[in-house]
Parts: sequence; C-alpha cells; structure tokens
Amino acid sequence: MFRRLLTLGEAQEIIRREISLEPLSVEGVTLSKAFNRVLATDMVSSLDIPPFNRSTVDGYAVRAKDTFRARENRPSKLEICGKANAGETSGAAVKKGTSVEIVTGAPIPSGADAVVMIEDTDLHAHALDVYSPVSKWENIMKAGSDIRRGETMLKEGTLLHSAEIGILAAAGIANVRVYTVPRVAVLSTGREVVRPGRKLLPGKIYDTNAYGLSAAIAESGGKSVNLGVVTDAMGVIQNAVRKGLASADLVVTSGGVSVGPKDLMPTVLNSLGKPGVIVSGIAIKPGKPVTIALIDGKMVFSLPGHPTSALLVFHLIVQPVIRAMAGREPDESIWIKAFMATRVFAAKGRRTFVMVRLNRDKQNRLMAEPVPTGLSGAITTLARADGFVEIGEKEQFIDAGEEVKVRLLTAKPVNRICDLHQSELA
Amino acid sequence: MFRRLLTLGEAQEIIRREISLEPLSVEGVTLSKAFNRVLATDMVSSLDIPPFNRSTVDGYAVRAKDTFRARENRPSKLEICGKANAGETSGAAVKKGTSVEIVTGAPIPSGADAVVMIEDTDLHAHALDVYSPVSKWENIMKAGSDIRRGETMLKEGTLLHSAEIGILAAAGIANVRVYTVPRVAVLSTGREVVRPGRKLLPGKIYDTNAYGLSAAIAESGGKSVNLGVVTDAMGVIQNAVRKGLASADLVVTSGGVSVGPKDLMPTVLNSLGKPGVIVSGIAIKPGKPVTIALIDGKMVFSLPGHPTSALLVFHLIVQPVIRAMAGREPDESIWIKAFMATRVFAAKGRRTFVMVRLNRDKQNRLMAEPVPTGLSGAITTLARADGFVEIGEKEQFIDAGEEVKVRLLTAKPVNRICDLHQSELA
Repeated sequence: MFRRLLTLGEAQEIIRREISLEPLSVEGVTLSKAFNRVLATDMVSSLDIPPFNRSTVDGYAVRAKDTFRARENRPSKLEICGKANAGETSGAAVKKGTSVEIVTGAPIPSGADAVVMIEDTDLHAHALDVYSPVSKWENIMKAGSDIRRGETMLKEGTLLHSAEIGILAAAGIANVRVYTVPRVAVLSTGREVVRPGRKLLPGKIYDTNAYGLSAAIAESGGKSVNLGVVTDAMGVIQNAVRKGLASADLVVTSGGVSVGPKDLMPTVLNSLGKPGVIVSGIAIKPGKPVTIALIDGKMVFSLPGHPTSALLVFHLIVQPVIRAMAGREPDESIWIKAFMATRVFAAKGRRTFVMVRLNRDKQNRLMAEPVPTGLSGAITTLARADGFVEIGEKEQFIDAGEEVKVRLLTAKPVNRICDLHQSELA
Repeated sequence: MFRRLLTLGEAQEIIRREISLEPLSVEGVTLSKAFNRVLATDMVSSLDIPPFNRSTVDGYAVRAKDTFRARENRPSKLEICGKANAGETSGAAVKKGTSVEIVTGAPIPSGADAVVMIEDTDLHAHALDVYSPVSKWENIMKAGSDIRRGETMLKEGTLLHSAEIGILAAAGIANVRVYTVPRVAVLSTGREVVRPGRKLLPGKIYDTNAYGLSAAIAESGGKSVNLGVVTDAMGVIQNAVRKGLASADLVVTSGGVSVGPKDLMPTVLNSLGKPGVIVSGIAIKPGKPVTIALIDGKMVFSLPGHPTSALLVFHLIVQPVIRAMAGREPDESIWIKAFMATRVFAAKGRRTFVMVRLNRDKQNRLMAEPVPTGLSGAITTLARADGFVEIGEKEQFIDAGEEVKVRLLTAKPVNRICDLHQSELA
C-alpha cells in the first residue's frame, strides 16, 4: 500500500507536462473596463503622439534666431501677426521679425521653431518686447516625440494599470484585446459543512474554504464560481464536479482527500474522465493529501479540508496555474531576509512550510516568529502570518538565529511589512 | 502679482485641516462581495471555532490513559463501542477499556480525551489493537482553540483578503459592514481634447487623463465617474464640476490650471461655493499649477493637463485623500535603495520629482536611471519608470553615484522589480 509521495517539484513538473500553462483565450474590452487586465497583443500606435508640434507654454511662437540678441535690458522687438489657439490649426505663419500669440497645447504655426514664455515678454500695442532668448525647439513638444506612429507602445502580456491605460488613451484606442479571466469553480465537501448565515446544528462547522479560496482566486486574477457545499456521497460529488467542469476552466475542491472511509474524491475524479488523478499526495507539510486530476483537458485540484492547508496549497500550486491562464507572470512573490526566532522542525521527508510573523527583537533585527498553527485546522494562522519559511525535504530543522528567506503572502497589505521593515526593503 | 508658492508639506497640512480624512460612510455587503473591502467595525465571534472538540484524523477516540502501555510488539486491546460521524453528535460514550471509531472532523464522543490514528491500530472483530500510545488531547482540536466565542477576530480597518474572508466565514458571518468606496468624478478640460475612439481632427489630441486617472482612482480604492471632456468655457466647466460635486464625493479635473488666458479653472472653482480655492499652486516639479478647492465640504483637485504631471500629482496628493476616505492606510509605498546613475538637477526652490527606472550596472549595483520626460507631456514616462526620486526644496541636484531612495509607483507589478532586485528586497 505504501508508495513514495511525489515531491513538490515533481508534482509541478507533471502539471507543466500535462496542461499548457498558456493564456486561455482573448476578448475585447472597452478601455474603461481594461484596468488590471492583461494585453493579448502588442499595441502599435497608428499616430504620432503628440500628433503635431505643440506649445508647452503660453506665449509667442517665434523664429529662435530672432531672439538670440534679446536681453533683460535690451529686448528684441517683434511684430505680432496672429494667434494660435488650442484645438485648431492656425492660419497665421511666422516670418522674420514676427511672432504669433500661442497658448499651451496649440499647434506651432508654420515658420516658427520656438516659443517665448509670456513671462519673458511685454506687449505694446502690436509690438512685442522679448527679454530673453530661446533656443531652437524650446518650449515645443515635437510631433511623435512621445510615441512615433508605427511604434510598439506596449507589449503583449502587459498588465494595464494607470500609466498603460493613459498611453492607450493617448493613441486614441477605445477597445483593447485582453486575455479572458479564468473561471474557477469552487466546491466544498463534507456532511459537517454548512454555509455561513445558516443555523449551526451540533457537530457542524461553517464553510470556510469556499469563501477563503474565492478571495484567493480573485487575488490571483481569476473569477470564482461558487458551487456550494455537498455532502460526502459519490453521486452528489460527481454531479457537482461535473457541473464545475462544464461551467469553469478549472475546478478547486476542498475536503475529502485524506485516507479515511469518507474520502471519495480520488474515486470520483477517476470516474469522470481521462486520465483522471495525476497527482495523489505530495511530500509537503501541511497539504500532503492534495489530489490533482486532469479530466478531458481540465484540471481539478482537490485541496485538504483544513483552511490553512487549503490556502497554502492554493498559493503553492493552484495560483501559478490560474496566473498563467490569465496571462500573468506565474509568481509575484516578495522575499524578505530575517532571522528565525525559535528552532522549527521539518516533517520527515516532506518540504515543510512554517507560517511566520515578522517582528523586531531588542537588537532591532528582523525576526521570523512561527505562528502557532493549532494543528493546521486554524484559520487564524494565515491571517496572523506575514509569510512563510520553507524547510527543504532533506533538512531536519531550522535553528533559532539562522537567517531565512520569508516569502510574503501575496495579498498581504504591504504597509504593515513596510512600516516594520522599511530598512530591509529600502 | 508674485506670491510665494506653498510647499508640498504646507499644501498637505491645509488639506488635513480643511477636511476630515476619515472614512466616508458604511454599508453592508455579503461575504462573497467583501473581497478587497475594508472592515468598518471590529468583528467579534459569536461562537467557538471549532464549535466542538474535533478529531483531526481518522481513527479511534480513546481515553489516553488506556494507551499508555501500548507498544509496537505489545498492543493495548480496546473494545469498540460505537461510531462517531462528521456532522452529528455521537450517542456513543468512551469508558475505561473502550473506544469509538471516528473520522476526521467528527465531534469527540464523551469520555474520550485523545484519538489514535487508524495507521497505529489493527482491527480484530470487535477488538482493537493499539500499537502506539497517545497523550491527552492528541489529534483533537479543542473547541475554541482557533477563535474563542466573544473574541475579536478582526479589527475595524482590516483589509479583507483571502485569510480574513476565511475567518469571517468560519464564524458563520454572511454579511459584513465595510466602508463605502469613495466616488471620484473625473473631468477633462480643453477644446483640443477628444475622446479616444473618435476621429482626430488637425490640432486635436486624445483625452489621456480621464482614462489614466480613472485607473489610478481604482488603484487607490475609489470608483471613478467619468464626466467626459468639456471645452474651455466658463459656463460649461461650471456645469460639469457642479454635476461632479452632486454625483461624487470628490472631483478631479485636468487641464486649465496654468496662467494662460484659457485657464478658467480657479475662477470656476471660486464661483461654485465656499471657501473655493484653498491651494493655488505648489512648489513642486512637475505639477506646480495644481489647484485645490473646497466647495461646500467637497474637494476638487485640478491637476495639470500634462499626463505625467497629472498622474504624479495624483499619486502625491489625491491618492492619500481617496485612501483615507476608503478607510485604507494613507500610503502603501515601497522604497528601494539605489544609486543615481547620472546627475539630476532640481527646479529652483521646488521639490523636484525625477522619474527613474531601476537597472543594474556592471558592478551589479542597483542604479536609478532618470527617464527622459520629454517636457513632462510625455505619457510614456510613467510607464517606463519604476518609481521616482525626490530632490528637496533646498537641494540643487543629486550627483551621479549618490545613494537615493526610490519610491516605487504604487501600481507597478512587483515582479519586474523583484526579478531585478530580489537581493535588495530580500
């Protein structure tokens, strides 16, 4: 009955081999809805930005040459021969000895090659006194100087935040092709599990995982579809997983993967399609009983029922898959160096993850203090932790005082870490 | 006509004095909609979690005392007197010399104080052989050991991510009180400005700011209301700002704040209510012409028209206000230490912000390279930058090779920075 468990690396290799970790598909969205989406194509500008030579100040468009001798006490004198407004092409042209009044953003009139700021001039009837010379192209933003027509503005795979959305708007783009958001079905199993908000009868507990996992899916760039809670019965679980496979790109279940008599999940998964279960347990702690199946091209991840185990396995294994399907970088983790506050032991032969909270000791060193896990059933563990430390499969423990790398939990508000650790980050 | 400009610190002090930087109001949402929202109240658990003593393994509930002599080669023998299922209270009770079969998650039957794992037993008809002793409470998660009834699970002000949502679910909470998301109206001004997607006539440019700012508002925890583009005419701008004040908690406009003849914004703002303009320009670069008004209790921020200036001023001044109204920490910035790649100059008497990109030099040092700004009209500047460096009001320059603190742009995907700078962060 004993089989060697797969290592985490082996399990990840199987996932990579069995399914293509590529973005799922592409859809069009309006620019107003494109925030936090990922570009599915390179974006090439069809126009120069700015589209024309623009004044960056209010003042007078001139030939730079005509101002070269201008001094505070001996202004150059120019005739004013017209006005250039923003939003239209001026009919006026600048010739030797003349200037055109111009406002910020207006196109530079023909003949002009610089703009004198209004602060450096005085106006006398139709004569302009210029007190300071300007060099060629001064106060002019040249056509195409920001982005040239035909230039690739943003590459496929770019996450669209404020600056990137601003760039697309500047190029007049109202619709963009982005990767579709992966749909992830979430199912909780267990006859003891009850939806929050309902009455809790003796022996029952509330469903933690569906809600925690749905939030983790959103953090990863996916969209969750909550399939609710089902009891531990073969047919009922089969139907629910089948529904998940039909309505989503990926299914995540929790509960029902230990070795007990009620743990029907592997049987269910093998009954639904080929090849069925491809990973049956991983040598990690917590999270050992995780089961991964591939059913007619779609993945099902069956996570342990214990909330901290479920969320940790989600972070390690499911999140990178969702991120890849969403066209995002597989991992955005931040690591921080710290010293282990107390000795922590590994589970023999398993890669062990120790949840830690970062705190200062009296010497102002950053210490990683293990968060008591309360038998990994504790949902408060993850909320109290800032991140986790790994102990390798072949290590037995990390000693107090040893330097460790803490992987921050992806969604932790950075501010607490920053307040505390600015010097480590800075 | 000359007035000393306010420093950034003075302007921020005026904002703090004039309006309360408190969360706006509170609303109820279902737990499924609570992701990324901020708790408006402390959350106290009305139940023990777990609600009862639970088995954490499949096996047999026993009196620990009855197993103390159990050894691999000399098992303790116990009678089996019943079964405990998950989801219900077992009628069976454990007495001296007896045990009750139990599955993971089931309530511990009365009389039992430990659970023997199934792997450490053998079953012979109704007799159980136990090969390994268990200590008191072994393999039991005690009622309330994760969260006690009456305990504050999460504090007011907590941002709800996966772990926090899991905790609320575990306590059976289906609805939570969260701070409302501030509504921020966005208005672009300028007769040269055209909405993306429309045809671009000569002299016109596309509206960059409304889209870039809307995304920046979402990044800050607000919700944008796009008021569109209006031309530079007193009555039209008045109506648009009035509409923004009526429909949102805050108004952000761009364009129309320089000293030119078309810059009607200060006049408009003073015409709409009391006290009107409270900050008229700040000694910063870029962003000097920013105008801030308070109109009957609501703030209007008029940002420069240049996209990089507009977004930078948004980051510096508007974002903290939106975050405070949303109940979030005012600032979540991360700073990174680097060396300035080239000498950069300050604008005289103004706090100067230099956009930089982080790169390695040949000695593997992290260098902050200024991103050419193309006269601050360039929208590509912010997208190319990883963050910015400040030069104080009284400094003249930062020299090449000087150590600087780079403030990362809030919404930059951390992965590029991480790939590059893991050692600085770690």
